[in-house]
Amino acid sequence: EVMAKSLGTAATAGVGVDQELIASVPSSNPTFVARNFTEAEISYCRSQPHPAASFAARWVGKEAVFKSLGVSSKGAAAAMKDIEILADESGVPQVALHGDAKAAADSKGISKVLVSLSHTDSTAIAFAQASV
Amino acid sequence: EVMAKSLGTAATAGVGVDQELIASVPSSNPTFVARNFTEAEISYCRSQPHPAASFAARWVGKEAVFKSLGVSSKGAAAAMKDIEILADESGVPQVALHGDAKAAADSKGISKVLVSLSHTDSTAIAFAQASV
Amino acid sequence: EVMAKSLGTAATAGVGVDQELIASVPSSNPTFVARNFTEAEISYCRSQPHPAASFAARWVGKEAVFKSLGVSSKGAAAAMKDIEILADESGVPQVALHGDAKAAADSKGISKVLVSLSHTDSTAIAFAQASV
Repeated sequence: EVMAKSLGTAATAGVGVDQELIASVPSSNPTFVARNFTEAEISYCRSQPHPAASFAARWVGKEAVFKSLGVSSKGAAAAMKDIEILADESGVPQVALHGDAKAAADSKGISKVLVSLSHTDSTAIAFAQASV
Repeated sequence: EVMAKSLGTAATAGVGVDQELIASVPSSNPTFVARNFTEAEISYCRSQPHPAASFAARWVGKEAVFKSLGVSSKGAAAAMKDIEILADESGVPQVALHGDAKAAADSKGISKVLVSLSHTDSTAIAFAQASV
Repeated sequence: EVMAKSLGTAATAGVGVDQELIASVPSSNPTFVARNFTEAEISYCRSQPHPAASFAARWVGKEAVFKSLGVSSKGAAAAMKDIEILADESGVPQVALHGDAKAAADSKGISKVLVSLSHTDSTAIAFAQASV
């Protein structure tokens, strides 16, 4: 007998897009950085040629991932640190969810979130896709 | 016996991205607004802190959804009012298709369209994904 | 008997977003154009009302497709000509992969890449989604 449930479909649960002016992301504010980025993200962004652009790209990436989860925004209280975006060995950004973000994803059956980041000199943009 | 067709796969039929300068979307023109937005969309946008930005975000959202359907553009005659984007109770934008847009989606077996919207002070952007 | 493998699931393997200022894409440089665009792409872009915008949109489209494949960047040596984006009869951009790009996609089981392009007067943006 064939078990239908064993055939993994991969429906998209949500998508998210976000953009910000790099200058509007306060990446030189230590409180903002410590509240919203993990240690690994901070190390990565500071190692890049343009740390402000890297922080801004990750910031919009977190916002895009949050939107793709399809949950209510908690405004300033949203724990963006729970959405971690780190480059793998090929340089492709990978999403890891922790805490409340992971709980929200789990409650919706979301098993994977893909993200892509880009920036010009002035603007950072990100796209995310959450799949069950 | 297992009915293969009962297993819903969820292939992406098309994607769409669109952006516009907020200032280039004539949201203070009543004719433009009445032609392209539903009553519910108009009420929603006018209730927002920055109605021009909300109208522009929805406008690019409609364009992105249209692109995701993969049909020929009818130019100025495209009935953007048939693509309705309203926030659900969590604030997540939901797409409802009517008229010609629904017929086009039905003809391609498209059952769901996801959309995400974003804007800076100057630019609105949207991404859409249509699935069979 | 039901062949499970005959039921095509369509998981997204990767997503990609890219943007550039149109003025920063050297589309009036014949060497850049010949290295990165196919003859069909060049003919198409030159036939458009704003060739520089069309070249820039295709350029960011190629970058977005490349990102969606999830492979290591080869920097300046990446063969962007191997990622061809041409409009179908409905005007919807279609992706054809050749050479190294096709080999990379094949090695990951990627069977389809969707792309969408957009530009304002100043900026081009693209989104791509690769599916197995």
